[in-house]
Amino acid sequence: MPLDLSEYARVARDLGVDAVALVPGPNFTRAVKHLFMSNERPFLIAVPAHGEPAALVPNLELRSWDLVEFEGAVFDWRDQDGHDAAFATLTAHLGIASLAVEGQIMRVFVHHALKKAQPNLQIIDAEAAISGLRMIKTGDDIAALRAAIEISERALERTLASVRLGQSEKEIEQVLIQALFAEGAEDQAFHPIVAAGDGSARPHAKARADYRVRAGDALLLDFGARKHGFCADITRTVFLDHATDEARDVYDTVLRANRKGHEVTRAGITAHQIDDAVTGVLEASPYADRIRTKTGHGLGRDVHEAPYIMRGNHQVLPAGTVYTNEPGLYQIGNFGVRIEDDILVTEDGCTSLTRFPTGLQVLKC
Amino acid sequence: MPLDLSEYARVARDLGVDAVALVPGPNFTRAVKHLFMSNERPFLIAVPAHGEPAALVPNLELRSWDLVEFEGAVFDWRDQDGHDAAFATLTAHLGIASLAVEGQIMRVFVHHALKKAQPNLQIIDAEAAISGLRMIKTGDDIAALRAAIEISERALERTLASVRLGQSEKEIEQVLIQALFAEGAEDQAFHPIVAAGDGSARPHAKARADYRVRAGDALLLDFGARKHGFCADITRTVFLDHATDEARDVYDTVLRANRKGHEVTRAGITAHQIDDAVTGVLEASPYADRIRTKTGHGLGRDVHEAPYIMRGNHQVLPAGTVYTNEPGLYQIGNFGVRIEDDILVTEDGCTSLTRFPTGLQVLKC
Repeated sequence: MPLDLSEYARVARDLGVDAVALVPGPNFTRAVKHLFMSNERPFLIAVPAHGEPAALVPNLELRSWDLVEFEGAVFDWRDQDGHDAAFATLTAHLGIASLAVEGQIMRVFVHHALKKAQPNLQIIDAEAAISGLRMIKTGDDIAALRAAIEISERALERTLASVRLGQSEKEIEQVLIQALFAEGAEDQAFHPIVAAGDGSARPHAKARADYRVRAGDALLLDFGARKHGFCADITRTVFLDHATDEARDVYDTVLRANRKGHEVTRAGITAHQIDDAVTGVLEASPYADRIRTKTGHGLGRDVHEAPYIMRGNHQVLPAGTVYTNEPGLYQIGNFGVRIEDDILVTEDGCTSLTRFPTGLQVLKC
Repeated sequence: MPLDLSEYARVARDLGVDAVALVPGPNFTRAVKHLFMSNERPFLIAVPAHGEPAALVPNLELRSWDLVEFEGAVFDWRDQDGHDAAFATLTAHLGIASLAVEGQIMRVFVHHALKKAQPNLQIIDAEAAISGLRMIKTGDDIAALRAAIEISERALERTLASVRLGQSEKEIEQVLIQALFAEGAEDQAFHPIVAAGDGSARPHAKARADYRVRAGDALLLDFGARKHGFCADITRTVFLDHATDEARDVYDTVLRANRKGHEVTRAGITAHQIDDAVTGVLEASPYADRIRTKTGHGLGRDVHEAPYIMRGNHQVLPAGTVYTNEPGLYQIGNFGVRIEDDILVTEDGCTSLTRFPTGLQVLKC
């Protein structure tokens, strides 16, 4: 079956631009149904508002490109010759005045190569419109997300069972990563965060080789498997050996915020309304000064994608949207708590694709 | 010790531009000595040719940024407010007319945010000069590369010992990935290529779940661990059960090309000269029509970096350069062979950091 790129042509028409460009990344993979890597070799598909698409393909990818049933002109180039001539031929062939690109994915050297080939080409960042096509998940997408999440939850269970006082964050991280692959991950969705004690108070902490976990520590794990091209993104925070009264109260506050997100979500709600409800719970608590992040982000082929769940984003969430509900409270130098679920928006509410229990867990380890 | 960014100031002066910008990626990690992720939030350091650097930091990264002993102005921004005001303040503070950027790393949305804040700002792609600072490896860099390579070689040994006829490429890939982490990888350097039979003839093949390896197949494994931020990149091609005379002759040709690369390499040689010598061996063989790739690329924090080892690149390789020597021959529909070593250029020759034997291996499996 020849490749159907008509959705992208429609985006070009909707935006009033002459063509949409895709470069290797989640939209490209979705469009061509094969994985191509983003590297130092420019690789681009241009889908005009009207007419046939064209592609600029590194010569050494041509045999893999054969697997893509692409109907349109293909301009290849060899490392030895450079890519300038291929860009010149491509732009001459297209004869366009404006091009919508994925601003979060396309790199500056491709932008410059396009402008060098056609200095008057108007390049528009249409990240939201292009990647927006991925917002409503299909049945296959949701099955892939569920598979990624189930692998991640089994890996978390294994990892928590193996935690011992005195292990370094780095050692626990290694156990988690190995468990992800042992459970069937095809890749990691992102480099995991495994952070204990004061490290848990940094939203994007990196595992330390020189910090050994202690009784009373919060241990925050934020991680996910990739399966069939889709990402899981889960956070759980547990306490080691015991939890102080303050820890329990902070945990309970974050959990109430997380549950509020589940409660308010249904098709038609805006990203703003979800964040307002979730963050409102945190703000009403004695820990309002520990808020550092928005509620979450869309999840799919990319671990961070639209919609961004934050105040000021009045984008409506249709049924089929999947987002992360991940409120947290972080006190610098002390500890942090985050509880993150992956939520599927449905017509009459929502389903948490994450099933791992969210109740307070104190590990006797 | 405060962060020393003077090398980047010197690049700005050498290029005759007012400042150099770094965004999360290998140069950024090298510069600030901490790992920050590239995501939807712009994050940027500007190092002027003269004077103090400045940084634009997402608010939720500030607590991690504290670990970087950065001396200079910091402009942070919150998701809810967007980043436009921070870019405007940054550019006003810098007061520059031109900015050199990493064209292979910076994405178009950051380019556009800079141009929106200061429409007359001249943005120059200085990828070669900025990333070029990473070309000569330090002792620590080489130790990290050796660690990554040793992990990779142990993982390869484990994987080859477990290969059985009838396994799918995907199953073998999973064994390889698990072995990498079991041997101590902190990440994969890139998604591995595990390709058998006709798949081995595609230089960038992806492992198939529906192809089961057969007696007589070539099995090509191209993979690497990441350790201490540095990448291994190794390829070995073995034959399963038996190798035909043609397979043996092709293998021998590729091995002679690979050895030629080792023989000719010493400080002062150009990338062109290495590729010419290596590819020359392939061209002189009966299999010249199976050549699809250049000889290789630099290796370090990035799995593909300067210098690119190809004809036409007259860049001189100084001692301390590390590159991949990876000739290959690929016959579509039949099979491919690639043998890839990671080579350290020295004053009087070179050292292969890869020690895994390169002789023809026929697995009895």
